[in-house]
Amino acid sequence: MSVHLARDSYGKHRVRVSKVRRPREAPANQERHEFVEVSVDVELEGDFAASFTAGDNRLVIATDTCKNTVYALAKDHDVATIESFGLAIAEHFLERYDHVQLCRVSLTETVWDRLGESLHGFVARDRATPTAVVTLERDAESEVVAGVAKLLIAKTTESGFSDFHRDEYRTLPDVDDRILATELTAQWLYRGEGAGSGGDFLGNRRAVVDALLTAFLDHYSRSVQETLYRMGSAALEACPEADEITLTMPNKHHLLAKLVPEGTTNDNEVFVVTDEPFGYISGTIKR
Amino acid sequence: MSVHLARDSYGKHRVRVSKVRRPREAPANQERHEFVEVSVDVELEGDFAASFTAGDNRLVIATDTCKNTVYALAKDHDVATIESFGLAIAEHFLERYDHVQLCRVSLTETVWDRLGESLHGFVARDRATPTAVVTLERDAESEVVAGVAKLLIAKTTESGFSDFHRDEYRTLPDVDDRILATELTAQWLYRGEGAGSGGDFLGNRRAVVDALLTAFLDHYSRSVQETLYRMGSAALEACPEADEITLTMPNKHHLLAKLVPEGTTNDNEVFVVTDEPFGYISGTIKR
Amino acid sequence: MSVHLARDSYGKHRVRVSKVRRPREAPANQERHEFVEVSVDVELEGDFAASFTAGDNRLVIATDTCKNTVYALAKDHDVATIESFGLAIAEHFLERYDHVQLCRVSLTETVWDRLGESLHGFVARDRATPTAVVTLERDAESEVVAGVAKLLIAKTTESGFSDFHRDEYRTLPDVDDRILATELTAQWLYRGEGAGSGGDFLGNRRAVVDALLTAFLDHYSRSVQETLYRMGSAALEACPEADEITLTMPNKHHLLAKLVPEGTTNDNEVFVVTDEPFGYISGTIKR
Amino acid sequence: MSVHLARDSYGKHRVRVSKVRRPREAPANQERHEFVEVSVDVELEGDFAASFTAGDNRLVIATDTCKNTVYALAKDHDVATIESFGLAIAEHFLERYDHVQLCRVSLTETVWDRLGESLHGFVARDRATPTAVVTLERDAESEVVAGVAKLLIAKTTESGFSDFHRDEYRTLPDVDDRILATELTAQWLYRGEGAGSGGDFLGNRRAVVDALLTAFLDHYSRSVQETLYRMGSAALEACPEADEITLTMPNKHHLLAKLVPEGTTNDNEVFVVTDEPFGYISGTIKR
Repeated sequence: MSVHLARDSYGKHRVRVSKVRRPREAPANQERHEFVEVSVDVELEGDFAASFTAGDNRLVIATDTCKNTVYALAKDHDVATIESFGLAIAEHFLERYDHVQLCRVSLTETVWDRLGESLHGFVARDRATPTAVVTLERDAESEVVAGVAKLLIAKTTESGFSDFHRDEYRTLPDVDDRILATELTAQWLYRGEGAGSGGDFLGNRRAVVDALLTAFLDHYSRSVQETLYRMGSAALEACPEADEITLTMPNKHHLLAKLVPEGTTNDNEVFVVTDEPFGYISGTIKR
Repeated sequence: MSVHLARDSYGKHRVRVSKVRRPREAPANQERHEFVEVSVDVELEGDFAASFTAGDNRLVIATDTCKNTVYALAKDHDVATIESFGLAIAEHFLERYDHVQLCRVSLTETVWDRLGESLHGFVARDRATPTAVVTLERDAESEVVAGVAKLLIAKTTESGFSDFHRDEYRTLPDVDDRILATELTAQWLYRGEGAGSGGDFLGNRRAVVDALLTAFLDHYSRSVQETLYRMGSAALEACPEADEITLTMPNKHHLLAKLVPEGTTNDNEVFVVTDEPFGYISGTIKR
Repeated sequence: MSVHLARDSYGKHRVRVSKVRRPREAPANQERHEFVEVSVDVELEGDFAASFTAGDNRLVIATDTCKNTVYALAKDHDVATIESFGLAIAEHFLERYDHVQLCRVSLTETVWDRLGESLHGFVARDRATPTAVVTLERDAESEVVAGVAKLLIAKTTESGFSDFHRDEYRTLPDVDDRILATELTAQWLYRGEGAGSGGDFLGNRRAVVDALLTAFLDHYSRSVQETLYRMGSAALEACPEADEITLTMPNKHHLLAKLVPEGTTNDNEVFVVTDEPFGYISGTIKR
Repeated sequence: MSVHLARDSYGKHRVRVSKVRRPREAPANQERHEFVEVSVDVELEGDFAASFTAGDNRLVIATDTCKNTVYALAKDHDVATIESFGLAIAEHFLERYDHVQLCRVSLTETVWDRLGESLHGFVARDRATPTAVVTLERDAESEVVAGVAKLLIAKTTESGFSDFHRDEYRTLPDVDDRILATELTAQWLYRGEGAGSGGDFLGNRRAVVDALLTAFLDHYSRSVQETLYRMGSAALEACPEADEITLTMPNKHHLLAKLVPEGTTNDNEVFVVTDEPFGYISGTIKR
């Protein structure tokens, strides 16, 4: 039997690093700190086939070394955005190792907000998590996919779903007023120029998220699909550097509760919250 | 062999309910909504032994009925706080069923913050989750344990740990400047009067959380233990209605990274974030 | 305002350790290995108040030291059972440190089953997880709570639920044939003698689990409550060393699916599986 | 600004269904049952753009209808394998709805093993979970990707890692005897004929998993990469119907513990188990 290695990659996942930025002009407890935390996955492709097929490790950059590298780069880089830090990591691997053909860096940020006016106190968020996937390949256009995950949003009216396909498998009635809730994930793509280290990743991120939230609310939603398309279109309009955007909008159902005693009405007031099964809508919008 | 039933309880867990509050003086899309979401566990104790020992279900209020009841009460109650909603549920079961001796209701809120100035748009938080455990027992003092969970906080300086026990099992050096991070859980107890439905649960909650956060930052921390005690003391001072408070402060370690190339210094700048193993400190402070 | 520290404890959680046992009479790849993996939580109580109230760490055994100790003891101990390893850890802390009053060790095992007849190949299980909580206190009786968690079992018939309390909140009909599924957690208690390091923890564990599973099946179940009581009674009968047993049996509902097209019958054939809300039944049975 | 919908799909996820199979020649409690449980994700592509861009729902098969359909098909189908059940679901959607262009069904099985010799008692596994992704598209070759997930395996010797790339970022030493543990995920592809409903999916699954486990153990592993390639090659040899196989083998590190008191040796006996960061190796092997 003849088989061959068709695709391979390897790297280190969940390299979690935090960094304290401060002017270092005064003792630590007398100056203003910034605190960032990132989880990094590094994946490499290149001239690594011999390690798979012949047990020859000579070109293998150990995943432990990948981890060391992330820590080392975290010292040299300001980690102002996960997009720029991801670019720095991917550039390092391509520049340092001739036999690396492609480096993909996936990053998730734990956002630490300042606690009041404190110089060095912070509280972490767990919603609207920034994400980024940076892919650099030799002789190919750079790609940065910036994103936001775990953004749980709802509108308590101005949403319905009706006039959809009717057959003997359908039991859901038409409804013209319901709760629409979703845990939004958005990923927008920068290519070439826009994927360079000079990009305004932070400003764009804010513009995209603002546009998504505004468009979630600015219309009567006839379906998750319609609202998804409007949100994605608005995001592209707000961020000219992005070439395309992909949204996934799982339906986090709030179902009208059937109330007891029998005969009790429920005028869109009390809802049963369920996690599964759930509707799952996704779409990619391009210029 | 002779055995007996020494303790029993049963109920329904994870009854998840959301409620839309609005004046109902105008169409849904023209007036301001409030949106609350709660997960409720109901547990009952009482005259239920025969169901265990004799298969006699006549006194068993089905867990499905417990669920129906939570939905029904969510309609009648404003669900302004999880403490007051928990009291309403527990009171219902004791008043409605003579053979229920004790009702314990545990609640967790998903906080929906208003999206900007929107009348009906909301975004959910997943940190600083409000919790409550309400326990009503016939002929006993009421107890309400209010709490906050998943409050992930850090200070990037003003913390150390030194002069601790030294023996041949110790390898950790003294350190006078480190990151202190913890995922705080706090539970404070109201008894009797303070556990009544007239309590200012919301005002107290804000006062307690503010006091905890302020006390987390207002001193140089010689240990998690010291900081825990100061935080708990401050919370009791801020909330005279609370009799005691229990804090758990798992140490979410940010460990100084060992940097490469060899010889690279790390002046409290880059840290490795680990989830486990973790130090776990807990304490109860009473008046 | 006067407050005081009413209760405190601290320690290290999630100390995860694996151990390879082998005769060491031949090279590693020529002899039969045993492989065990345990996650250990150590908690200490004793003369530690000054660390909370006065920032005085002199008596504090660092949680890092607790971790080191678990690793060190894993070398000296055979880790044949988590109960015996927990006892060794708790005994160490009480013997080594006069100011420790109580040591509680909670352990969870990842069971590695041998892969076929391999000398050194293993595959891990994630059900029927062994657990143990060992509590040693000076001048008090030893306690070992052995347990099993995540034991997901079902019977597809021989179960019903009927003749339960009827009122206006009830909507669930009587049913005389249903699926009964639960994720069983059991914890049985050894005290004094039985909690000594000479106990046959492994033999007892097998006897208890066998008895629980047999009793789950050997009768028509009129309620989870009835079945729980029968299972607990059988376990105590099978393990004379155990003083009591606590079972929790969350109802993992398999609900009869409503089938389309309208009019399609469902003769206990197709079920909707739901995680929440769920009935939660618990009971403690003693001699 | 001009944008367009470049890609879209929608469907229902986490439709969880269980089924009892039995001869139905005797009362339920007197004959032998089979019990299967599956979680199903259905995704549709086709003529749905108008729902996104114009709020026109007329062709939208509601995700609720998708759910109903899964339950309905679970009655008609024997659910002998998740591959065949997935095919039945995908075929239904393509046959029933002309405007559906592609249907992708992803399935995960909860395996219920018989409890001893019981006719109707079962215990669930949570390792070596069967998975399948069935993709049917009009005028395209059928594809079935069968898989296994959460297969946690280890070898306690016969593994090393040495002679890998050396530079100033490397700190990991060469090692010629270590624990190799991984949570294996494998996915093998059937195309065309092999992806038909007549395939011996169950026999092939057993052959593939056996081959993977045997090849995990049958050699001294010079790297995860080498072992992955050998395992994948063996699987393709054992299952001629499969065109290719993709393996992912995250390194579940068991790191040699540094033991106290200082000077204590650790002859590959005690290991620290960590979840993150972790090495992540993946590869696709084709004929």
